[in-house]
Amino acid sequence: MTRAATAGIERGSGRRLRTRARLIEAARRLVATKGIEATPISEITDEAGVGVGSFYNHFETKEDLLEAVIADTFETHGAALDRIHAGKTDVAETFAQSIRLTVRLVDRDPIWGWFAVRTGMYVPQLRSSLGSRLARDLRRGFDAGRFASYDAETTVAAIGGALLGVMRSKLTGDLPRDADRFLAEELLRLLGLPPDEAAEIAGRRLPAMTRLLSETSAARAASASGEK
Amino acid sequence: MTRAATAGIERGSGRRLRTRARLIEAARRLVATKGIEATPISEITDEAGVGVGSFYNHFETKEDLLEAVIADTFETHGAALDRIHAGKTDVAETFAQSIRLTVRLVDRDPIWGWFAVRTGMYVPQLRSSLGSRLARDLRRGFDAGRFASYDAETTVAAIGGALLGVMRSKLTGDLPRDADRFLAEELLRLLGLPPDEAAEIAGRRLPAMTRLLSETSAARAASASGEK
Repeated sequence: MTRAATAGIERGSGRRLRTRARLIEAARRLVATKGIEATPISEITDEAGVGVGSFYNHFETKEDLLEAVIADTFETHGAALDRIHAGKTDVAETFAQSIRLTVRLVDRDPIWGWFAVRTGMYVPQLRSSLGSRLARDLRRGFDAGRFASYDAETTVAAIGGALLGVMRSKLTGDLPRDADRFLAEELLRLLGLPPDEAAEIAGRRLPAMTRLLSETSAARAASASGEK
Repeated sequence: MTRAATAGIERGSGRRLRTRARLIEAARRLVATKGIEATPISEITDEAGVGVGSFYNHFETKEDLLEAVIADTFETHGAALDRIHAGKTDVAETFAQSIRLTVRLVDRDPIWGWFAVRTGMYVPQLRSSLGSRLARDLRRGFDAGRFASYDAETTVAAIGGALLGVMRSKLTGDLPRDADRFLAEELLRLLGLPPDEAAEIAGRRLPAMTRLLSETSAARAASASGEK
């Protein structure tokens, strides 16, 4: 193949990726504002500035697109949390910091926050992404004797709901700046830690927040510009 | 006024109330299924079997109707809880039983449950109805030295979210039959009660469940038939 032909394919493939990234970003914005049911495909393609036909070159249904948005939105954050906590030994600290960093991300990226709040209660994929990480951390804490005995499904539903509830009130400006610390302290108590210890662990300095956020943003930016 | 004329006015007013109740019931069903944004007024009037013009005889906007649905849906339940707990002295028990009865109502009335889950994260009126009762109980518990010190707004957001999260997973059949007891136990720990005491209080027999539910259903039925 000539160099010019290869460059042509690369340009074509770059354009294809950019269109896909534009559809994902438009869907995230619209679903964050209005919810899933109220967002028709035609509005997503309008917002993305592409034709409806283009949509079907990338996705078969709105649900396919939503799955891509969720993978892009939550897997990036979940993977960043995993990276931060790699090698840490105390699951109570890991859990508290994951909760705090997730609540804080809402301030830095409100569209991310509203998307989570709007979809978190309904969408099975969210539960299989961040939900499965939460379930894994709870199991570890229980196996290590750190967390009180619990019904796994009920606890994941309760903690996931509490997290979404606090993110939501954070987004509407109804909570103090350190709501993330209060929530982490309360959830450690919920998991059976003594009040003094829960307060101490929830108050520890957050690690590498800037790195987490810049890595997450960089991954998002790369995805949006089609270089991923 | 002649007796016939009075009867005519009563019939007219009964019809008016029945139309209003039908609009409320239709809105509750549709919002429970699809959410607020995806439910246009024309679909509510279709479902209720009344003309769009009739809608505007009763409500100015969709939001007005929604407020009436929420008052009907949550105030009835909240008032029933208040009635049950009247005279009880231990706020920890009152709190645990309110949580358990609310989770259990979801099994008996899934439309009620889905309506709460679909609206709970967004609608300010829900927070001013059940949310203000929750805030009141937390304040009482704190004043009585029963609950650990807390940030009121964060705690209401966390507990409200946890309740919605468990109701949601109950509706999709993902939780065990006694999820309500697990949740109450965990939330009492969250509020600072020692694990043993939290388990004991959450496990106490529920009072007058049948009476609560039959009173709530009776109030709903009376409202739906326009006799309220």
